Amino acid sequence: MSWSQNTFSFAPRTRGCYLVTDEVVEKVPEIKNFKVGLVNLFIQHTSAALTLNENWDSDVRADMTDALEKIAPESWTYRHDAEGSDDMPAHIRSSLIGASVTVPIKDGRLATGTWQGIWLCEFRRYRHTRKVVATIQGEKFK
Amino acid sequence: MSWSQNTFSFAPRTRGCYLVTDEVVEKVPEIKNFKVGLVNLFIQHTSAALTLNENWDSDVRADMTDALEKIAPESWTYRHDAEGSDDMPAHIRSSLIGASVTVPIKDGRLATGTWQGIWLCEFRRYRHTRKVVATIQGEKFK
Amino acid sequence: MSWSQNTFSFAPRTRGCYLVTDEVVEKVPEIKNFKVGLVNLFIQHTSAALTLNENWDSDVRADMTDALEKIAPESWTYRHDAEGSDDMPAHIRSSLIGASVTVPIKDGRLATGTWQGIWLCEFRRYRHTRKVVATIQGEKFK
Repeated sequence: MSWSQNTFSFAPRTRGCYLVTDEVVEKVPEIKNFKVGLVNLFIQHTSAALTLNENWDSDVRADMTDALEKIAPESWTYRHDAEGSDDMPAHIRSSLIGASVTVPIKDGRLATGTWQGIWLCEFRRYRHTRKVVATIQGEKFK
Repeated sequence: MSWSQNTFSFAPRTRGCYLVTDEVVEKVPEIKNFKVGLVNLFIQHTSAALTLNENWDSDVRADMTDALEKIAPESWTYRHDAEGSDDMPAHIRSSLIGASVTVPIKDGRLATGTWQGIWLCEFRRYRHTRKVVATIQGEKFK
Repeated sequence: MSWSQNTFSFAPRTRGCYLVTDEVVEKVPEIKNFKVGLVNLFIQHTSAALTLNENWDSDVRADMTDALEKIAPESWTYRHDAEGSDDMPAHIRSSLIGASVTVPIKDGRLATGTWQGIWLCEFRRYRHTRKVVATIQGEKFK
């Protein structure tokens, strides 16, 4: 039984959903040392989120961004508006989508489905560096 | 400290929310060997989801299906529409609900509340087999 | 490698979102014994939820409560209505937000971001005691 925990950053991006599976595998190279396990990716921010979704058609990411704007729109009136009109909807969307994902590891690889990838959802227009804590637990290869 | 990981399938079902607690316990029999632990159930698809919700009244599942249709409706215009009008809303709903649940295990049983069960939410009309990776970690009974 | 699992309760609160980070740390004192690990907090109810969000401005919590009322409103017609008009929307919101959070532990503390805290979201008007199973796994300090 082994543990690995490290923090990495996603470079600043503007509002949108991004496929980051390859970047996660590169930034968390310990994944490949585990025969079986789970990796928890936890974003330390409240106006961005992590999720699993489609990994092939970038239109899905664009449609998701638009859908979240319809579900929790900037046009509503919010008490919390000092940081701009995109701030409070970003907080709402972050709890709808979630701050973390837990993905199984099998034979040194993420056990995701054929059409499934990890997405970073950025809800602010202004670009922020986003920090993620990656915690792996499992059994390493002998 | 022990690990168990296996993949199982849910038989194809049409669009709707389904109570699958008993089916999970049957398909992941290792749960009963753990005195304490966590089971992570991870669906390898992006147009279905897993969640915890009410385990008694099937009306709750029907109302949830209708509510998700209102929150992310088929009637919106999507870029991603080659697979049919129910495809992109399925992707949206899958990230709103989530691809995985993590449930505590206590004394060989899921430590769910009295009225709480595991739901499979299927968002496509056409029936698909759905694969789930079940990963358990914890301490087995001695 | 060590495990800790205990159940604690949140005192009854009326509908709203509440910042409960300090209360969690107090009720799960084992967190401070772990050098590295993960804590899973699992609410055993289907009309309340746990999430991570902003920890400074209580307006964010009030705006979230209002936003969830807009996203899954009481005014819709539901089949499941025997327990009152706030019951079915509570079930919907609980699956949108989620029954559990998994938070990394680093050096005996929750590895949350600067502006990030744990929220209890209570979706019923009538006050209920809410039970949470806290499961920690990790490496303790030597």
